[in-house]
Amino acid sequence: MEGEGAKEQSKSALKKAEKQAKMAADKAAKAAKQASLPVVGGKKTDDIIGITVKKTENFPQWYQEVVLKAEMVEYYQEISGFFVLRPLSMYIWSTIRKWFTERIEDIGVDETSFPIFLSSKSLEKEKDHVEGFAPELAWVTKAGDKDLEVPVAIRPTSEAVMYPYYAKWIRSHRDLPLRLNQWNSVVRWEAKQTTPFLRTREFLWQEGHTAHLTEELAGEEVLQILELYARIYEELLAVPVVRGTKTENEKFAGGYYTTTVEGYIPSNGRGIQGATSHCLGQNFSKMFDITVEDPANKGSHLHVWQNSWGLSTRVIGVMVMVHGDDKGLALPPRVAKLQTIIIPVGINKNTSAEDKQKHEDTVDEIRVTLKKAGVRVDTDTREGYTPPWKFNDWELKGVPLRIEFGPKDAANKVISYARRDTGDKGQIPIADIGTKVPELLETIQKDMYNKAERSFTEHRIQITKWDEVLPALDSKNVVLIPFCLNGKCEDRIKDLTTRAEDTSDVPENQKLPAMGMKSLCIPFDQPEGIKAGETECLNPECSSKAQKWVMFGRSY
Amino acid sequence: MEGEGAKEQSKSALKKAEKQAKMAADKAAKAAKQASLPVVGGKKTDDIIGITVKKTENFPQWYQEVVLKAEMVEYYQEISGFFVLRPLSMYIWSTIRKWFTERIEDIGVDETSFPIFLSSKSLEKEKDHVEGFAPELAWVTKAGDKDLEVPVAIRPTSEAVMYPYYAKWIRSHRDLPLRLNQWNSVVRWEAKQTTPFLRTREFLWQEGHTAHLTEELAGEEVLQILELYARIYEELLAVPVVRGTKTENEKFAGGYYTTTVEGYIPSNGRGIQGATSHCLGQNFSKMFDITVEDPANKGSHLHVWQNSWGLSTRVIGVMVMVHGDDKGLALPPRVAKLQTIIIPVGINKNTSAEDKQKHEDTVDEIRVTLKKAGVRVDTDTREGYTPPWKFNDWELKGVPLRIEFGPKDAANKVISYARRDTGDKGQIPIADIGTKVPELLETIQKDMYNKAERSFTEHRIQITKWDEVLPALDSKNVVLIPFCLNGKCEDRIKDLTTRAEDTSDVPENQKLPAMGMKSLCIPFDQPEGIKAGETECLNPECSSKAQKWVMFGRSY
Repeated sequence: MEGEGAKEQSKSALKKAEKQAKMAADKAAKAAKQASLPVVGGKKTDDIIGITVKKTENFPQWYQEVVLKAEMVEYYQEISGFFVLRPLSMYIWSTIRKWFTERIEDIGVDETSFPIFLSSKSLEKEKDHVEGFAPELAWVTKAGDKDLEVPVAIRPTSEAVMYPYYAKWIRSHRDLPLRLNQWNSVVRWEAKQTTPFLRTREFLWQEGHTAHLTEELAGEEVLQILELYARIYEELLAVPVVRGTKTENEKFAGGYYTTTVEGYIPSNGRGIQGATSHCLGQNFSKMFDITVEDPANKGSHLHVWQNSWGLSTRVIGVMVMVHGDDKGLALPPRVAKLQTIIIPVGINKNTSAEDKQKHEDTVDEIRVTLKKAGVRVDTDTREGYTPPWKFNDWELKGVPLRIEFGPKDAANKVISYARRDTGDKGQIPIADIGTKVPELLETIQKDMYNKAERSFTEHRIQITKWDEVLPALDSKNVVLIPFCLNGKCEDRIKDLTTRAEDTSDVPENQKLPAMGMKSLCIPFDQPEGIKAGETECLNPECSSKAQKWVMFGRSY
Repeated sequence: MEGEGAKEQSKSALKKAEKQAKMAADKAAKAAKQASLPVVGGKKTDDIIGITVKKTENFPQWYQEVVLKAEMVEYYQEISGFFVLRPLSMYIWSTIRKWFTERIEDIGVDETSFPIFLSSKSLEKEKDHVEGFAPELAWVTKAGDKDLEVPVAIRPTSEAVMYPYYAKWIRSHRDLPLRLNQWNSVVRWEAKQTTPFLRTREFLWQEGHTAHLTEELAGEEVLQILELYARIYEELLAVPVVRGTKTENEKFAGGYYTTTVEGYIPSNGRGIQGATSHCLGQNFSKMFDITVEDPANKGSHLHVWQNSWGLSTRVIGVMVMVHGDDKGLALPPRVAKLQTIIIPVGINKNTSAEDKQKHEDTVDEIRVTLKKAGVRVDTDTREGYTPPWKFNDWELKGVPLRIEFGPKDAANKVISYARRDTGDKGQIPIADIGTKVPELLETIQKDMYNKAERSFTEHRIQITKWDEVLPALDSKNVVLIPFCLNGKCEDRIKDLTTRAEDTSDVPENQKLPAMGMKSLCIPFDQPEGIKAGETECLNPECSSKAQKWVMFGRSY
């Protein structure tokens, strides 16, 4: 594919100036050879264009190269664990923000903005919850050159910042439901190794915090929000997820129950938590004294039922891991800042000024037609770069659809295209591009989802024999097993699936992962097969009966 | 006005159940008396509804009460100088964000998100610029219970965070212009007294940072952005501003020149900086080594020309100060979360269930019609509150248009309305509300602007005699004076206009302000009258010639 435009370039040269044919062909061949290198002088070219490792061979390095070279992030040199989100990433995040905001506005959620700091006083109020965050809190102890009397922590999440005000604002059951959401960044000073999007010391997210009169009303909202999270993955990012509940071990510290959408990374077979919607029950309303008079029982007060729910820029990392390939990033059209790139081909120094102008005019008409049709489109008019170099560059950056347009296309009144997801090529009559290109983009979106969905389905294996678990994990599956739901049993399952043997002699690329499996979720969608009081928990050491099919896996 | 609904309520009662007329009238009178108090039992009512001071009598307290009681902000009790922005405020900010984002996208500005922290290393790079911020920096020195090896500061603005990456990303003149913008919060630990929106230790803003090949291209953008800022004030917030350049004394530290939009607060006659668009020149590109090869002179390199520009939540405070009145907040319709509130009146316990249902149905039809016409509308169906209490409540919260709808209105097929800005009342046939209400809202928007514009024009006084300056300031004016543009002269003018006399014996409400005046801007729109080399600088001690008409005033 890399030589395509170059070939056409030389063909066009042959036709237009036969005498210079050989020279042009030589130039084209040279351009094809240099396809993975910038060809312009005067530009600093000290980095290698293109991904240098295969996704299957070294997944972590592949990921790091993709997010950097596709210009999604930049490592923040000054402080480790922090990243710059560049326009390509922010476009995805803004698209999600718009989509989600519209939908939560519809159910009555208002936007708010609470301060970035927590006082140590309010932290003391809810020790259980805070315990988990304490090692990661960033403490401001000085302002200017003065020590603060009382240090303040940057929010790792805002329960303790917000709920004192819920106690103040909620004065009657008529003030319920109170539903507030904020988009901000939080800081969690992780000790573990950081990874762009997936684990960073600062990340962007939205956090919704709501209060309701009854458990039932709170529970309805928990699921409404979870469904929106699932749709963000499925409809915007083309990433399939499994909806379910977290086990007691894995639920939000201090909450009542946690629902989750869980994703799957085919390259290493790991599960990844996508986003969580928590019912906090009355735990926080008791700590923060958030009560109303019971409308059904005048004179007596009840503690409100609360939810919190959050979705972070992690979603972008999951999307990259699922869709990217050895050429780089592959973006689903709905979240791509640029959906279609037009690359003029077949124009060279032998083309007459008049022909060149005419070609440029047609290219521009194509661009304008597509723009009017709602396509986010641009033309790559950079001089000094060969078409093959441009093809690689836009493939690296994940643009879903490439349009090549040369004199032959112009003569045939068509555009030639190449899909980023499959590499498939085809032609569309220029007269039809206003409808056919948007349709093609939607097809790409759906095909990307379907491909990922097939992969997740094939690698979500229902298992009823313990001995099959570890081989299944090693074959990059997550597993659905009958499980007793006991927390200690869950811990034991993790131990039993952790490889303890010394592998220091085994070459890195032949090592099997040591990581044990943990529970990902109890899927809402339960297969048949568990008989109450009969089916055993799969853990061979466990004597309890299974309660549910639970999805386990190695995980992020 | 407060008794209006109550009167109608009693009239309707007379008609519907003559026997109970007296009782109903008594009840209505009582309701009217209680209009400024909640009438419901079971609700905590420990705060006083309504503003307790007049805007003309105690402006600072008036402002504080308005922003609190209209539920725009909440003081953050835990840490002084921080505030919670509630949905009413966030709606305004989101509206501005959408409006501005659309327009900067059009000129090619992309969204980005840089880390919240600055390392001490990058701070050292640009000492001049940082000097001004140093006393206000919040320092993180601990993570969890471990001291950081190198403390990090929370950004007060992001020049030092971003520009090292501009140096990395800008490798050729083809990478220019680079235009990035981010929406975030910054922390400036002010020692001065804080005021909601106007001066807070954390605030929301957008910060744009761009790089250009030439001074001319940078300068064009500076003005493009400034014009967008002016339009946010004028078209969204209905607040007039004067566009101009800052003097050397008042420009951005480390920049080349600063343009600004300046507002005016009639209640105290003070000027207030609205938003600034800076040309940084090549000062930062020299510090951060941001260069490209000069396309006009191969082999030689030039430093790029940079701009930065920011608009913060301060705009909301200016809007409150300009439009609010003794009843509370008054919102321009374009930024009002709720533009129209429908309050059903004339329905009481004597109304038959059937009539009540019919009335409610009509009210809902009105609401739906308005909603379809694009009006942000709601109905106040709260039980246990009298119409007058509701009128006060929505006036306090600044809703631009109130619709009252009683049985008499229903019979006449009209709605009755009251404008928040003027108090004017009128009626509109129900058949016309889909067009007439949106028109009325636009009229309110324009009238609010025109009123504020008249006030600013009347209080922007051109002065050519020094003796008239102080009396003009004391009459709540800002002044336009011929000025030499010298920084020391400007300092001296501030001293000369500062009241030094001991006023400790003067009662607080008879005191004239001590505050001296400073320059607000050099307006782009210069009156005639300054003759080069002839007109004197107005400062009686200054022997230089005037260069420009400069707007001076007491200021925030």
